[in-house]
Amino acid sequence: LRGGDRSALAQAVTLIESRKPEDERSGRELIDAALAFSGASVRIGITGVPGVGKSTFIEAFGSMLTGLGRKVAVLAVDPSSSLSGGSVLGDKSRMGRLAVDPNAFIRPSPAGKSLGGVTRRTRESILLCEAAGFDTVLVETVGVGQSELAVHSMTDCFLLLMLAGAGDELQGIKRGIVEMADVVAITKVDGENVNRAKVARQQVENALWLYPPSPSGWRAKAVLCSALTGMGIEGVWSQVSEFLDHERQSGEFDRRRTSQVNAWFREALEARVLDRFYAEPHVQERLAFLEERIRIGAISPRSAVESLLTG
Amino acid sequence: LRGGDRSALAQAVTLIESRKPEDERSGRELIDAALAFSGASVRIGITGVPGVGKSTFIEAFGSMLTGLGRKVAVLAVDPSSSLSGGSVLGDKSRMGRLAVDPNAFIRPSPAGKSLGGVTRRTRESILLCEAAGFDTVLVETVGVGQSELAVHSMTDCFLLLMLAGAGDELQGIKRGIVEMADVVAITKVDGENVNRAKVARQQVENALWLYPPSPSGWRAKAVLCSALTGMGIEGVWSQVSEFLDHERQSGEFDRRRTSQVNAWFREALEARVLDRFYAEPHVQERLAFLEERIRIGAISPRSAVESLLTG
Repeated sequence: LRGGDRSALAQAVTLIESRKPEDERSGRELIDAALAFSGASVRIGITGVPGVGKSTFIEAFGSMLTGLGRKVAVLAVDPSSSLSGGSVLGDKSRMGRLAVDPNAFIRPSPAGKSLGGVTRRTRESILLCEAAGFDTVLVETVGVGQSELAVHSMTDCFLLLMLAGAGDELQGIKRGIVEMADVVAITKVDGENVNRAKVARQQVENALWLYPPSPSGWRAKAVLCSALTGMGIEGVWSQVSEFLDHERQSGEFDRRRTSQVNAWFREALEARVLDRFYAEPHVQERLAFLEERIRIGAISPRSAVESLLTG
Repeated sequence: LRGGDRSALAQAVTLIESRKPEDERSGRELIDAALAFSGASVRIGITGVPGVGKSTFIEAFGSMLTGLGRKVAVLAVDPSSSLSGGSVLGDKSRMGRLAVDPNAFIRPSPAGKSLGGVTRRTRESILLCEAAGFDTVLVETVGVGQSELAVHSMTDCFLLLMLAGAGDELQGIKRGIVEMADVVAITKVDGENVNRAKVARQQVENALWLYPPSPSGWRAKAVLCSALTGMGIEGVWSQVSEFLDHERQSGEFDRRRTSQVNAWFREALEARVLDRFYAEPHVQERLAFLEERIRIGAISPRSAVESLLTG
């Protein structure tokens, strides 16, 4: 893994994604061992509505980065992938060039019914990629439910892709997501979209000004790009780099990482505490009884909690 | 309370909102006693972006309902109110007519630093309002963070207010929220907005058709209204009633309530289990130590959890 072998990395990720009890301990030991060699990469979260061209953008962006001599890992958070069967990045053919690039590693979202499980596994995969020498980790989100928050909670820079569409630049974009963006890239600025894109940028920047600056004083800017022509792809990287320099200088970069790892710890801890509680033998039995009492209106949820915890 | 006395109701709500330990038990007993007389109201969640005219709409909608002989309670979920000082509905003057209506009861959002606490108190207030004979409960959300999900989880019908604005009808509306809407009301359809409103309705209905119908086969429709002229306010109520009839006939009404009360129970239970865990004497001490070890990269979150729970 430390030698940067991609198949060793793929196996390591498979181990920590495993849900077999016998793999739990070795997965934990592997992560602990990788820890000392992790943390040195730039972690970039990438989101955008369906149709914005995420795969095409990541293909162009990732290839540009390997061209600059960087080693690029592409991960994903898609809690719906186990339901839908398909998954983001599941089809590497959508990123044909990057998939065969020796300096790139592409891994689809771990399957999982809970976002918490998917999130934990992706966070651990980031550490493994870093230990394997990848200095740039792109984490794609499908933008379903809370997956954007999850990706935001594990990356240093949150890149929002928006469409240079026709007058409805903001359509479909959740306000909370625009607020989280550190850099905005307006995609598909080619052909007939070129003129509309400048209007789009203005509208996006006006929208961004409605939000207060970040704790470090950063204000997100919108960059125009086209994965088709390659225009602006380097400009997105310049903006990301400028943002990261700003964050490092203000100390916000380290603060964000510390708060992320603490939040990760608390989430993992609370999930385990609850699992342990539900596994107590009397709990399952009492739960079924109390839920029925609640359903018929014989007891309030508050009293049922009291009864379960003291009874 | 059972006599419908509004000041008794206000005191009861204050009791269950109290965070004094000595009020905990009486609050619980009050809720248990109210339970037998609760459940008979129609619970309507109301959301929309700032500027959509929520207060004005609720004032007109609530007054129309009391005019029909209904008793209307207006509650709110605003987890930010304890931070900002202000709060939704905090200023009853925004609903002057309804505030003095003997058949209406207006209560601002309970203060609280956690959405969970605010949600629990609002759910209990709904029960108290019902026990006091209110047959229509409107629950307003500020639309901050997860407050819409919280309101959706405690109401029978989720009403989304949208603006008949200029070409940007969907701007700022989170996609997930449109998906949750059972009825959409396009507000401020007066003056110059009248012509634009029809276009807006068409756009909204097109957007709604992108989503699959609800489990009961319902498809949300958009209704035009103006709180200023009163146009369409009864039409909103017709749509809400039509939706509720549909839900009752399909059995979805009861299923939704059962699943809501179960979710409420689980949330309350898990919050208490975690509180109890964090209150264990050795936990706080070990937590501080482990968080520092995590921060310096000496241990992974997963191993820290293992160490805390087994050590």
